[in-house]
Amino acid sequence: MKGSESLLTTARTCGVEICFANPGTTEMPLVEAFDVIPGIRTVLALAEGVVTGAADGYARMTGTPAMTLLHLGPGLANGIANLHNARRAHTPVLTVVGEHASWHQAADAPLASDIESLARPVSGWVGRTSSAAAAAEEFVAARQAALRDRLPATLIAAADHMWGEGGVPADVPAAPRPPEVDSQRVDEVAKLFAEGRGKVGLLLGGDALTAEGIRDAARVAAAAGGEVLVERSPARVERGPGIPVVRGIPYFPEDVLDALDGFAHLVLVGTRTPVSFFGYQGMPSVPVPKGTRVHVLAERGEDAAGALRALVEATGSSAVEPPDGERPEPTAPEGPLSASALAAAIVLTQPDNAIVVNEGVSASAAYPAAAVSAPPHTELTNTGGAIGMGLPAATGAALACPDRPVIAFQADGSAAYTAQALWTHAREGLDVTTVLCANSRYRILQAELRRAGITEPGPAAAGMTGLDDPALDWTALARGFGVPATRATTGEELVAALRRAHAEPGPHLVEAVL
Amino acid sequence: MKGSESLLTTARTCGVEICFANPGTTEMPLVEAFDVIPGIRTVLALAEGVVTGAADGYARMTGTPAMTLLHLGPGLANGIANLHNARRAHTPVLTVVGEHASWHQAADAPLASDIESLARPVSGWVGRTSSAAAAAEEFVAARQAALRDRLPATLIAAADHMWGEGGVPADVPAAPRPPEVDSQRVDEVAKLFAEGRGKVGLLLGGDALTAEGIRDAARVAAAAGGEVLVERSPARVERGPGIPVVRGIPYFPEDVLDALDGFAHLVLVGTRTPVSFFGYQGMPSVPVPKGTRVHVLAERGEDAAGALRALVEATGSSAVEPPDGERPEPTAPEGPLSASALAAAIVLTQPDNAIVVNEGVSASAAYPAAAVSAPPHTELTNTGGAIGMGLPAATGAALACPDRPVIAFQADGSAAYTAQALWTHAREGLDVTTVLCANSRYRILQAELRRAGITEPGPAAAGMTGLDDPALDWTALARGFGVPATRATTGEELVAALRRAHAEPGPHLVEAVL
Repeated sequence: MKGSESLLTTARTCGVEICFANPGTTEMPLVEAFDVIPGIRTVLALAEGVVTGAADGYARMTGTPAMTLLHLGPGLANGIANLHNARRAHTPVLTVVGEHASWHQAADAPLASDIESLARPVSGWVGRTSSAAAAAEEFVAARQAALRDRLPATLIAAADHMWGEGGVPADVPAAPRPPEVDSQRVDEVAKLFAEGRGKVGLLLGGDALTAEGIRDAARVAAAAGGEVLVERSPARVERGPGIPVVRGIPYFPEDVLDALDGFAHLVLVGTRTPVSFFGYQGMPSVPVPKGTRVHVLAERGEDAAGALRALVEATGSSAVEPPDGERPEPTAPEGPLSASALAAAIVLTQPDNAIVVNEGVSASAAYPAAAVSAPPHTELTNTGGAIGMGLPAATGAALACPDRPVIAFQADGSAAYTAQALWTHAREGLDVTTVLCANSRYRILQAELRRAGITEPGPAAAGMTGLDDPALDWTALARGFGVPATRATTGEELVAALRRAHAEPGPHLVEAVL
Repeated sequence: MKGSESLLTTARTCGVEICFANPGTTEMPLVEAFDVIPGIRTVLALAEGVVTGAADGYARMTGTPAMTLLHLGPGLANGIANLHNARRAHTPVLTVVGEHASWHQAADAPLASDIESLARPVSGWVGRTSSAAAAAEEFVAARQAALRDRLPATLIAAADHMWGEGGVPADVPAAPRPPEVDSQRVDEVAKLFAEGRGKVGLLLGGDALTAEGIRDAARVAAAAGGEVLVERSPARVERGPGIPVVRGIPYFPEDVLDALDGFAHLVLVGTRTPVSFFGYQGMPSVPVPKGTRVHVLAERGEDAAGALRALVEATGSSAVEPPDGERPEPTAPEGPLSASALAAAIVLTQPDNAIVVNEGVSASAAYPAAAVSAPPHTELTNTGGAIGMGLPAATGAALACPDRPVIAFQADGSAAYTAQALWTHAREGLDVTTVLCANSRYRILQAELRRAGITEPGPAAAGMTGLDDPALDWTALARGFGVPATRATTGEELVAALRRAHAEPGPHLVEAVL
């Protein structure tokens, strides 16, 4: 058995069901092996940012890592931005980077580079194959690390270790489970509620944001006082009737300070202390009010949902039914489009159990608030700020959950980085409806200029933040990639276009012109 | 004066005329400063691979480095593949990566990552600003290193060092010049020719590939015996009547061995010993025949053209007029398109003094041989094997030489990585004619499968090397990015389309369907 075949046999034993790929010559031994060792679906993408973003979206939905197959240092580099987002989402990803044959590495061939140096900033684990015989075990080491650390792991696989004979499938140990939270920490948090010395906020993130986690947290808040908050840019959050409505942490630090004003205690559950997305003059890095003490119930990577269940018990809240929150009827947007009209149109037309991949700072900020009126759904957001994750993550989410419609609520500036994902939507016939917010600018950057006091940008600043000369024609781009597309300029048109898109199978793009 | 303003003032003094940019919030202080300190043209791209590839193409044509402006680690990461090509092309690039404010770095904000680790594999020099006062000097250090090493240099500029007052423009020392070659080495090579102990090959690369360098080498070969060869994938080569026709080193190692068969001596002039692009079973890493001794006239980075001039003197060849080589009349291609028909159509319609950016392995391999019949032109090729350099490099070349038409001879698989460059072609009104070879496959990978004995690829291997389901509609994609486009399926159509494109100003794309 070849090294490549032992690796894929072992990947299958690990439960790997899918491999997102953009291979080159050094990956050909693995490409061939997928036909010899069937059982892992291979999905080609035109660019590596699609590969890694899809793996992120897939694992956010399934909890099990996808494999990715990338070509040497430059191929990995093209995938780093979305691996960065995966790292911030605490998503396990099993990246295999094909490397030159071991005996060819000293020749410093044109595509040679320091792959480890590229991989480390986005990987919890980086390793190399050492032989055909050991490759499968080395893959298992990557997998155990990815699941233990909840981070991407990168295995650099030399071509000769893949094409060479002598491969041995490896034993696969049980998947690491998130460690349970010590009961002492639960008791300490319970005491905060019992003592009643000021308002307590439960700030949920990561694994705490399951439907049950949010309900448990809301139960505690309802029974013992306090409020449930959601971290900024969660990897995944469940929403819908029966899941209490909770406030999110805003973007700008002054707004975070406002949102946390009045809390005596902030309890972290599966998240970390809020930090400002960027450093602003005169603003703190950590926008937590001076009077607010921060406590930890569950670190990221610990069993946050279990900790919340324990907290329900410790606070005697189990009999409490948390309030569901107000859910106004969704309203139909009319006339010219705005950010809130976009959100309203999506909410109004959203099918049950949709997965909404929300990438945008300015255009899609209105969605979470509007979405309290939506049917049950899951929202995935951009965790790491590396833009261009939306269309790729929608790819992975759609492949992870073929029975659930996927809505990519997508800013245009971000979409332009990885628009190639649309081709994979078409190729795989994915039920992804892309709502492309075409405001033809990097609106967040223009907002940043205003914050810096530049109300009338000069030609250079205007030129580096505007996308309107020429405006991208997103319907042409979508068709070029094989995705049917229409354009909407009013709320009425957008609602009609979304209804049509949801009614038909396969991918669609609706360009919503703001 | 702000740190950003001192940096741009100093960049101007360094001779920087252009900055390719895809900025984010941490770069806003620099974005603003371009309006305060005018004189550097800013060119926005939709994706960072376009930014870095354009900087590579620009400096290959001007010899002076462009500045690039990228956003934190993920923005840099997206630009690494084309910085890798720039590194292999020995192109100086001055990359400025905006970083979080110095006091915000400890907060590990979402976009934070180890930027140095990402930058090092593609940079000869990596540094950080230390204050507003020192930033300009630190920029000069980057510039001196980039010119000395002929490599990209990366300066990581903290936002507060840019927005902070106290910036001081720096003195700019003379640009480092390539060191001259020791006369002893020239004499040793001259002796090889004089002794007549077997055939001598002069293998030219890098700076040896100027018109004068090629002529000097051909003079020596004509007077003293021997042959001139050109390295595989040169950064830049001049071609046309009066510049002797020379053979290139082929791609596959067995073909390189054939090409070098019979040479007793191989003299490297501005290049290195040929290495196999990939390691193949049973093939050497260094495909140089056993009987061929390798000598060095000029290392990469040394004054190769000067060394050739000295060799002309040392061999007494100065009076010799080198043979021009055979230049058959270009022939008009007829009927269905093939790789050679494409090359013929380009050569037949090529305007004088065009810059041909040739990115493709299979589709554009026929061009260099056909181009002996073309009018004077410069060819730029993919030096590092990281695909997606063609359309970006064409962007930079067109901005470097606004009076010269640019032809992007572009494979479709590669084009898909950085198709976003078409938008910058449209935005800047560049005279770039893209000839898009649409074979709807990664043909080189299918060739690699055949080399590995896979004549009938299974569904996985076929799926990971084919791009025909769905086929990309390149005319739609081009129009989506604002570039007029047509499709050609025969030689006659292609010639007509190219004539029209060359006759009109601004960018065009012709999809040549193979």
